[in-house]
Amino acid sequence: MDINIDNTCTDTADKIAGVMPLVEKRRWIELRQALSTWPPPEVADFINMLLGAHRILVVRFLPRYFAAEVFSELSPTIQDELLTDLTNFEIRNLLADLEPDDRAALMDEMPAAMTRKLLNLLSLQDLKQTQELLGYPENSVGRIMTPNIVYIKESWTVREAIEHIREFGHDSETINMVYITDSNGTLIDEMPLSSLVLASLDDKVNSLMDYNVIALAATDSQESAVEKIKKYNYFALPVVDSAGVLLGIVTVDDLMDIADTHATEDFHRIGAVSVEAEGSPIENLKEASVILLYRRRITWLVLLIFAGILSGTGIAFFEDLIQHQIVLIFFLTLLIDCGGSSGTQSTTLMVRALATGDVKIRDWGKMITKEILVSGALGGVMAVAVAPLGIFRGGFMLAIVVMLSMFLIVMVGSLIGVCLPFILSKMKRDPAMASAPLVASVADIVGVLIYFSIATLLLR
Amino acid sequence: MDINIDNTCTDTADKIAGVMPLVEKRRWIELRQALSTWPPPEVADFINMLLGAHRILVVRFLPRYFAAEVFSELSPTIQDELLTDLTNFEIRNLLADLEPDDRAALMDEMPAAMTRKLLNLLSLQDLKQTQELLGYPENSVGRIMTPNIVYIKESWTVREAIEHIREFGHDSETINMVYITDSNGTLIDEMPLSSLVLASLDDKVNSLMDYNVIALAATDSQESAVEKIKKYNYFALPVVDSAGVLLGIVTVDDLMDIADTHATEDFHRIGAVSVEAEGSPIENLKEASVILLYRRRITWLVLLIFAGILSGTGIAFFEDLIQHQIVLIFFLTLLIDCGGSSGTQSTTLMVRALATGDVKIRDWGKMITKEILVSGALGGVMAVAVAPLGIFRGGFMLAIVVMLSMFLIVMVGSLIGVCLPFILSKMKRDPAMASAPLVASVADIVGVLIYFSIATLLLR
Repeated sequence: MDINIDNTCTDTADKIAGVMPLVEKRRWIELRQALSTWPPPEVADFINMLLGAHRILVVRFLPRYFAAEVFSELSPTIQDELLTDLTNFEIRNLLADLEPDDRAALMDEMPAAMTRKLLNLLSLQDLKQTQELLGYPENSVGRIMTPNIVYIKESWTVREAIEHIREFGHDSETINMVYITDSNGTLIDEMPLSSLVLASLDDKVNSLMDYNVIALAATDSQESAVEKIKKYNYFALPVVDSAGVLLGIVTVDDLMDIADTHATEDFHRIGAVSVEAEGSPIENLKEASVILLYRRRITWLVLLIFAGILSGTGIAFFEDLIQHQIVLIFFLTLLIDCGGSSGTQSTTLMVRALATGDVKIRDWGKMITKEILVSGALGGVMAVAVAPLGIFRGGFMLAIVVMLSMFLIVMVGSLIGVCLPFILSKMKRDPAMASAPLVASVADIVGVLIYFSIATLLLR
Repeated sequence: MDINIDNTCTDTADKIAGVMPLVEKRRWIELRQALSTWPPPEVADFINMLLGAHRILVVRFLPRYFAAEVFSELSPTIQDELLTDLTNFEIRNLLADLEPDDRAALMDEMPAAMTRKLLNLLSLQDLKQTQELLGYPENSVGRIMTPNIVYIKESWTVREAIEHIREFGHDSETINMVYITDSNGTLIDEMPLSSLVLASLDDKVNSLMDYNVIALAATDSQESAVEKIKKYNYFALPVVDSAGVLLGIVTVDDLMDIADTHATEDFHRIGAVSVEAEGSPIENLKEASVILLYRRRITWLVLLIFAGILSGTGIAFFEDLIQHQIVLIFFLTLLIDCGGSSGTQSTTLMVRALATGDVKIRDWGKMITKEILVSGALGGVMAVAVAPLGIFRGGFMLAIVVMLSMFLIVMVGSLIGVCLPFILSKMKRDPAMASAPLVASVADIVGVLIYFSIATLLLR
């Protein structure tokens, strides 16, 4: 009996190192035995580490149903590679064993040619199912739902229900939740399997029902599904069509991955790394190619050149002033950095709050008012903090100029940071496009103008 | 029969608006009936919207067990307010009905005085349990686990197991998963309740077991629990002590909240908003007070003044040069903005990758090498892009200066962005403290020096 509480606390790496010799010695039978006690994700990690030639062998040697589970955990690149090597017969079995949602995901990720090849190898019924899943819009709940669920009828007794589940529950992804539909397949309630188990066998199913069910529409966005499953703390949510007919379920594990991707997306956007297609941030930075990274970063940098030219022109406009008051440039970077930083602070707070749903577009008035107070306080304190430096470097008048500028620049920077995300989401764009560098550069331009205008007014 | 598929697709607001009249007309009985069909989180939303006087009434009128569920969904402020108004008798019932993990969370959040009051109202056994939960380190799995689970013995038949669950399963938070322990309470396996239901009643439990279980240690960090539950796609993970004895389970819904808080924390850190205590970012920006926001933002801004002073001094050092070549300052903000932005890009990518575990500290060599290539390409292109501007503003030599500076500044900025997060996590600090503004200001200082040094060399 091997119980791997310890394994799980250490890195999977050790386990993998343990079986590597079996590969070198080509002792496939023992390897198969060892692997089949592992959780599929760890086997996938193991296969990732193997040479192409060995990968295909290992996959061939895995127990059939297990192989499908492992396969769905592999990266698209390796899946593609394996599918090219496997025989049509093997692929047909593999596809038949995959969960419908994993199968659809696979089709989604494979190159078009491979997808066509795969679709041809599907059983008619699987083909229909897969195409249905693929029919729903990108990022819709329909894309990640699994249609394999057990239904029961409200008129049944608990005994009948459990009998039914024992008979038909086997190929459903999760039967922790049991769904109750009427004769048209319309979803009328859901209950945890446990409440059936805990009820007495002769109870009527409908005596356990509260006719209160939280459901998703197949066309709902995956983000709304994430919000809902978080709010209600469920493990799975039923998916219905416009007529309320039960189509399938989405499970929390799929939604967690979505939530992750979304956070990463916002992260990269706020760091001015473009995300290109919706929901496709660089999730594997370690493996990402230099070209990919270059592509994702150059766009913003080039755009920022133009911002830089603007602030440059702003400065150029005041060249005479600066030449006579050269000390002014001592404070230039200091001032615009503070404007940029306070802007970055407020934009990050706002972007995240909009993403988590903590702040809604309709709150813009409240948030801006609050930001005026906060940034006013910040600007005031910063102005005082910088005053002595002003006096030290250029005397009283200069100090006034620097203090005034600091106060205004911090306020304006912060307000830009708050407003931009709102404006973007009002324009139906991702608020996270109000990236730190963007806000900072805009704040720079405004900062230059504020600073030198005040200087012109007061130092003439 | 009211089935609220539509409600769930619209905002909870409508539902709440629907029952508000009942409050005004003080028709508590009808209100109680209406609310008791709602999911607890929605009732909590509703209570948040009420006046203090009404809140307490509504809570009093809710069915007893339901009230506890709703209570645990309320915000600490409102919980505190209600606890002050409720009688000790009512509080005692409420506490008795709370899930142990929610009870511990409550004690965690309440002011010390209130916590003492609550602990005194606990039954001896609940008190022990709560204190155990509170005994585990902050951010440890022990803090969020619930000890209420059903165990079964491997020697039993499926029938015996199901009987046992039917008898003792009622007050366990989730019995989707059934845990199998030996006579010492050591965890030896877990299985979904469904596999018991699907098995034939006379099977032996151990005939269904694979003696392979993924467990957490009570002292594991909550983040490691998040990583594990994501990797294995489970809905709940068992928690064991150092001896492998089963203590309780953590459920995915609690872990999802943790994952969220962590993402928010990183977000704020990278935006240079301080997080103070580990795991306590501003999660309710809408309600956050001006003072709180001020406190979280001022620290960094003041620190950035010093960065600004450094770059200012850098500039001041070159004042003569600038006075004779005033055109140089046209490119100043442009150049340092580009350095800052490329630094922001690389630090965001790195911080997120470290947070998701995609990149580990040991990968620093690989990542830095890659960054040299990427930033080299970026710097090269940016240099070419800015060249015409250089010629236009100050002729060939200036163009050379600007191109060289751009190339170096973008590279150095990017490398700072990559290295800082690694250095921080090597120092056991949160890599996200390598905030965009911090990286940008460091890049500014270096940028100023690079730019004007090159200018001095080439323009003399």
